[in-house]
Amino acid sequence: MTSPAASSSRIATPIAFAEADLDVVSFNSEGLVPAIVQDATDGTVLMLGYMDVTALRRTLTSGRSWFWSRSRGEYWCKGETSGDRQWVRSVHYDCDGDTLLVVVDQDGEGACHTGNRSCFYRRFDDQSDNVSGVTDTSPG
Amino acid sequence: MTSPAASSSRIATPIAFAEADLDVVSFNSEGLVPAIVQDATDGTVLMLGYMDVTALRRTLTSGRSWFWSRSRGEYWCKGETSGDRQWVRSVHYDCDGDTLLVVVDQDGEGACHTGNRSCFYRRFDDQSDNVSGVTDTSPG
Repeated sequence: MTSPAASSSRIATPIAFAEADLDVVSFNSEGLVPAIVQDATDGTVLMLGYMDVTALRRTLTSGRSWFWSRSRGEYWCKGETSGDRQWVRSVHYDCDGDTLLVVVDQDGEGACHTGNRSCFYRRFDDQSDNVSGVTDTSPG
Repeated sequence: MTSPAASSSRIATPIAFAEADLDVVSFNSEGLVPAIVQDATDGTVLMLGYMDVTALRRTLTSGRSWFWSRSRGEYWCKGETSGDRQWVRSVHYDCDGDTLLVVVDQDGEGACHTGNRSCFYRRFDDQSDNVSGVTDTSPG
């Protein structure tokens, strides 16, 4: 029996930073910054989470993606319970410093709790006219 | 002399939707939803902007990317003045409905007002140890 940790052959690569480097990031009035997570292998946008300065610091230090859950009011490390871990390869910030882009190697089935690889698996005007979010491949 | 509009060979492709389809999107307490913009050609994450329901409706209807500027307090259509237009190919929403992913064909030099193709042109621990945001390719 292997644990999710043991099943991953990937290793964490911490990103060196000085505390002053964090000043480039502008956190909003809630102390949060949106963090887009993109798959390093093919550029798929996997999800968007929110980081406060502590979650960002943990992400850089650990090489794993840490977020602040606004609904649960707690920190969470992606995949720690599901096994769908994210191994951080680079952390970018935008021209305004108010958005992060986290490039990762994604473990497991994907990033979404629904079992989809990407959280963005639904779109407007899709072929099945299905915009209600129900997965349905039947005609009409 | 050609205008930016005339210089683009791309055409707008509106995305069909019913008003009720917009109910899948959860807007925050400010009435906004973050919208990640990704390049259709190679998956580059170009920028993140914010849409309210009107900006989303305009985006779907026009096939061009519309945002709400929090700093200027006005709607803006990306590239309308710069010529760096975005031609929307699909609009996705995530599992929670609180983030959008807009896939576009990007005109011009790119999406960033700095002249960079992507707004995420800086990263922590980059090779030049340049995390202050100053573009500097000189040694040390």
